[in-house]
Amino acid sequence: MKLAAIAQHLDCLLEGDGNIEIRGLAGIEDAGPDELTFLSNLKYVKKLKNCRAGAIILSPDTPKTKISRLVSKTPYLSFARAVNLFHEPLEPTPGIHPTASIASTAQLGEDYSIGANVVIGEDARIGDRAILHPNVTIYPHVRIGDDFLAHSQVVVRERSVIGNRVSLQNGAVIGGDGFGFAPTEDASFEKIAQAGIVTLEDDVDIGSNTCVDRATIGETRIKSGTKIDNLVQIGHGSVVGENTALAAQVGLAGSTKVGNRVMLGGQVGAAGHLTIGDDVIAIAQTGIAKDVEAGSRVSGSPQLDVRVWRRNYYVLQRLPELLRRVRSLERQLSEHDKVKKGTGASDP
Amino acid sequence: MKLAAIAQHLDCLLEGDGNIEIRGLAGIEDAGPDELTFLSNLKYVKKLKNCRAGAIILSPDTPKTKISRLVSKTPYLSFARAVNLFHEPLEPTPGIHPTASIASTAQLGEDYSIGANVVIGEDARIGDRAILHPNVTIYPHVRIGDDFLAHSQVVVRERSVIGNRVSLQNGAVIGGDGFGFAPTEDASFEKIAQAGIVTLEDDVDIGSNTCVDRATIGETRIKSGTKIDNLVQIGHGSVVGENTALAAQVGLAGSTKVGNRVMLGGQVGAAGHLTIGDDVIAIAQTGIAKDVEAGSRVSGSPQLDVRVWRRNYYVLQRLPELLRRVRSLERQLSEHDKVKKGTGASDP
Amino acid sequence: MKLAAIAQHLDCLLEGDGNIEIRGLAGIEDAGPDELTFLSNLKYVKKLKNCRAGAIILSPDTPKTKISRLVSKTPYLSFARAVNLFHEPLEPTPGIHPTASIASTAQLGEDYSIGANVVIGEDARIGDRAILHPNVTIYPHVRIGDDFLAHSQVVVRERSVIGNRVSLQNGAVIGGDGFGFAPTEDASFEKIAQAGIVTLEDDVDIGSNTCVDRATIGETRIKSGTKIDNLVQIGHGSVVGENTALAAQVGLAGSTKVGNRVMLGGQVGAAGHLTIGDDVIAIAQTGIAKDVEAGSRVSGSPQLDVRVWRRNYYVLQRLPELLRRVRSLERQLSEHDKVKKGTGASDP
Repeated sequence: MKLAAIAQHLDCLLEGDGNIEIRGLAGIEDAGPDELTFLSNLKYVKKLKNCRAGAIILSPDTPKTKISRLVSKTPYLSFARAVNLFHEPLEPTPGIHPTASIASTAQLGEDYSIGANVVIGEDARIGDRAILHPNVTIYPHVRIGDDFLAHSQVVVRERSVIGNRVSLQNGAVIGGDGFGFAPTEDASFEKIAQAGIVTLEDDVDIGSNTCVDRATIGETRIKSGTKIDNLVQIGHGSVVGENTALAAQVGLAGSTKVGNRVMLGGQVGAAGHLTIGDDVIAIAQTGIAKDVEAGSRVSGSPQLDVRVWRRNYYVLQRLPELLRRVRSLERQLSEHDKVKKGTGASDP
Repeated sequence: MKLAAIAQHLDCLLEGDGNIEIRGLAGIEDAGPDELTFLSNLKYVKKLKNCRAGAIILSPDTPKTKISRLVSKTPYLSFARAVNLFHEPLEPTPGIHPTASIASTAQLGEDYSIGANVVIGEDARIGDRAILHPNVTIYPHVRIGDDFLAHSQVVVRERSVIGNRVSLQNGAVIGGDGFGFAPTEDASFEKIAQAGIVTLEDDVDIGSNTCVDRATIGETRIKSGTKIDNLVQIGHGSVVGENTALAAQVGLAGSTKVGNRVMLGGQVGAAGHLTIGDDVIAIAQTGIAKDVEAGSRVSGSPQLDVRVWRRNYYVLQRLPELLRRVRSLERQLSEHDKVKKGTGASDP
Repeated sequence: MKLAAIAQHLDCLLEGDGNIEIRGLAGIEDAGPDELTFLSNLKYVKKLKNCRAGAIILSPDTPKTKISRLVSKTPYLSFARAVNLFHEPLEPTPGIHPTASIASTAQLGEDYSIGANVVIGEDARIGDRAILHPNVTIYPHVRIGDDFLAHSQVVVRERSVIGNRVSLQNGAVIGGDGFGFAPTEDASFEKIAQAGIVTLEDDVDIGSNTCVDRATIGETRIKSGTKIDNLVQIGHGSVVGENTALAAQVGLAGSTKVGNRVMLGGQVGAAGHLTIGDDVIAIAQTGIAKDVEAGSRVSGSPQLDVRVWRRNYYVLQRLPELLRRVRSLERQLSEHDKVKKGTGASDP
C-alpha cells in the first residue's frame, strides 16, 4: 500500500515520499524500509536516529527526520488504525458447526458463526453477527446484543445480560457464582445463593481467564466502553464505570464502585464496599483500602496520594541513613551532657 | 410470600406487619416496599433512615425503626437463608446429553445431569446427584462423592479424590501438574513427574479459574468446609485446613500448611514450606514469608503482626516529617556547638 | 525395586543395604520403611533423626545416619529422577476420538492421541507424538513441533508458533489478544488489532490458566527451556529468555524483556517496556518498576537491591522506636535550651 494512501486513510499529514510501498508495521527498532512505525512517547525520540523504517507516524512537535512522516495529533491512535488497516483477521466460518449443541428455544440473529462443540442453553438470545469460537458455553436465559465475539473456552452463565459489540477473550467467565458464604454458629460456612446477574454494557472487552462474578442479589455491572485485561477478578455486586481500563490481575472485592475513565494498573487490589471516583489512576500493585477521591492518583498498599507516597518513598529508601543520623545526634547530645556534667563536677 | 411465613422459615422474631407480601431481596439502598433487606454491620446503621424496604432483617441491638423487622442474632446468616428461599436455581436437565463422552468403565451414581460435550475418563467414579455442566472434563481414575457440582470448563485431573457436596465454579482446574522442575548442571530444568494427587474433602467450594495443583508425591489436600474464591493458586503438596476461606487471587506456594478457620484476604501470597496456624487472619495483599502463629492477625509484605504493622504504618506515613525533625535537631545541635565553640574561643 | 537398582538408575553412590525393596517415594516426615526419601536442603537436617524411610537421597556433606543412603552431588535432581522412575503416567489413548473436529487442511504427525471434542483449525500443523486431551482448541494456522502435550481446556490461538517438547497445563491460553486500546479524543477506547503472534520455543512448560498474549505487531516470545507456573500473565510483545522460571501469578506488562536464567517469585509484577537482565532473582511480590541489572537480587515494590531492601526493612520494622528516639532528642535539646536560657537569665 502506498504511503500516500495510508496517510489518506489515517487522516494524517504526509511529509515526504508518498510513493513508498508499505507492506506492514513494526516497532521503531525493528522496522525496515518497507515498514511503517510510530513514535508516540517523546521519551523514545533518540531512537529516531537509528530507525530504518520506510515511514513513521509521529506528532507535530517531533524533531525533523530524514524518514517520511505521517503527522498526527494522536500518533498512537493513528498507529492503532494503521495496524487495523494491515491486519487480516481470522475469517470465521459462517453457519453452525454440526457438533454445536443449540437448545431449541435459543434464538440467534443473522450472519452468525458458531464453532465446534459450542453449547447454547435454553431461551438464550443472541443478536446479529455473533462469532462463537469452538468450545464456548452459553448458559440458559442469557441476553446478548449484536456483534458478540466469544473466543474458545468462554463461559457466559445463566441470565447474564450483554450489550452490543462485546468481546470476550479465551476462558473468560461471565457470571460465575460470587464468593458468598455466611458463617454459622459452629464456624462452618453456609452458601448464599448468588441469585443476581452480571450486566456487560456495550463495547466492553474482557481479557482471557478473567472472572466477572454474578451478584448475590441485584447485579454486577461493567459499563459501556470499559476494557478489562486478563486474569482480573470482579467481585459480586461491583459496578465499574464507563471507559475505564483495568490492567491484568487486578482484583476488586465485592460491592466495589469504580468510576468512569479510571485506570487501575496491574495487580491492583481494592477492598470491598468502597468507591473509586472518576478519573482515578492507581499505580500497579496499589492496595486500595478506602475510598479514592475523583481525579486522584494513588500508589502504595494501603494507598496514599501519589505525591505523598513519593515523598515517603524518598525517605523510605534512606531509612538506614536516617537511623545513623539519629544515632549520631544521640551520641553528640550524650557528649554534651558528659561535658556539662564534667564541667559541673569540676565547678566550685 | 408473606413476611410472617418468611419469619417462620428463617426462625426470626417478627416485629411489625406479618401480612406484607415480599417478592424478593435487595440491598438496603435499593430495596422497595415489596422487598426484604438486611443490616448486619452496624457501621451502616445510618442507612436505615432512607430505607424504603418492606421489611428488614437485623440484630436485636439495632435501634428501632418504622420498617417491619425480622430480628435475628445472626442477621447475615438469616439474610443468606432468605436469598436461598427466593432463589430459583438453574434446573439441570436430567440424564446424559447425547454429545457427552463417557468411558465404558466409568461409574455414575443416580439422578445425574451430564451436559453436552462432557468427557468422563476410564475408571472414573462419581456419586449420586452429580451435575456436570457442558464442556467439563473428568480425567480417568477420579473418585468423586455425592452431590458433585461442576460448572462448564471445569477440569478434574487423573486420580483426584473429591468428597461429598463439593462444587467447582467454571474453569477451575483440580489436579494440574505442580510446578516441579529440578535444575540440572547446565542451568536447564528437568521436569519432576507430579506423581501425587489432589484431595478435596466434603463441602469444599472452589472458585472460577482457580488452580489446585497435584502433589509431586503424596497429596495436596483441601479439608472439609473450606471455601476458595476465584483465580487462587494452591501449590503442590499444600494442605489447607477446615472451614478456611481464601479470597480471590490468593497464592500458596508449594507445601504450605494452612490451619482451620483461617481467612486470607485477596491477593495474599504465602511462601512455601511454612505453616499458618488456626484462626489466622491475613489482610489483603499480605506477603507471608514465615510461619504465622495460631490466632494472630497479620499484614504487610513480609508480614507483621497487625498491631505492629499499624504502628509502623503510622510512622511510615509521616516519614518526611520525621526527616525534617531530624534535620532540625541537627541544625540546633550544630548551632549549640558553634555557640559553645564561640564561647570557648572567647574564654580568656 | 531394589535400592541397588535405583542407585544404578540414578547414578548415585549406594551406602547401606542394596537389597531393600523400595515401593515408592515420600517426604522425609512421611516416608516408611519401603519408601525412598530425600534431603536437599541442609536446613532440614534435623528431620533425619525421626526419619523412618527405607533409604534416603542426600549430598556427600550430610552427617552420617543409620538409614541406607544414595549419595548424590545434586540430591534434588536425583530425587526428581527417582520420582520419574516410579511414576506411571496417564496412558493416552492412541488415535483420534470420534468426537474430535479436525479441519481437513490440518496436518498431524505420527503416533498422536487426540481426545474427545478436540478442535483443530484449518492449516494447523502439529508434529509427531502429540497428546491433546479432551476439549482442547487449536485455532487455524498454528505451527507446533514434536512431542506436544496439551491438557484439557487449553487454547492455542491462530498463527502461534510452538517448538518441540512443549507442554501446556489445563486452561492455558496461548495467543489471546493483547490489551491494546488507543484512547480517542472523547475518552473512549479504540481497539488495536493484535496482529502479531506468540512463539514458544523448545522445552517450554506453561502452567494452568496462564495467559501468554499475542503481540500487537511482531511477536511475544518465550525462549527455550523456560518454565512458567499457573495464572501467570505475559503481556503482548514481551520476550522471556532461556531457562527462566516464573512462579505463579507473576504478571509482565507489555514489551517486558526478561533475560536468561531469571527467577521471578510468586505474584511478582513488572511494568512494561523495561529490561530484566540475566540471572536476576526477584523475591515474591516484588514490583519491578524499572530496569534490573543482570545478576542482581531485588525485592520490594518498587524494587530495590535486596541488600538495600533488607537494611531498609530492618529500620522499617523499628519506625515507632525511631520516632520515640527523635522525640526524646527533641525533649533533651529543649531542656538544654531551657537550662541555657535559665542560666543566661540568671547571668548577672
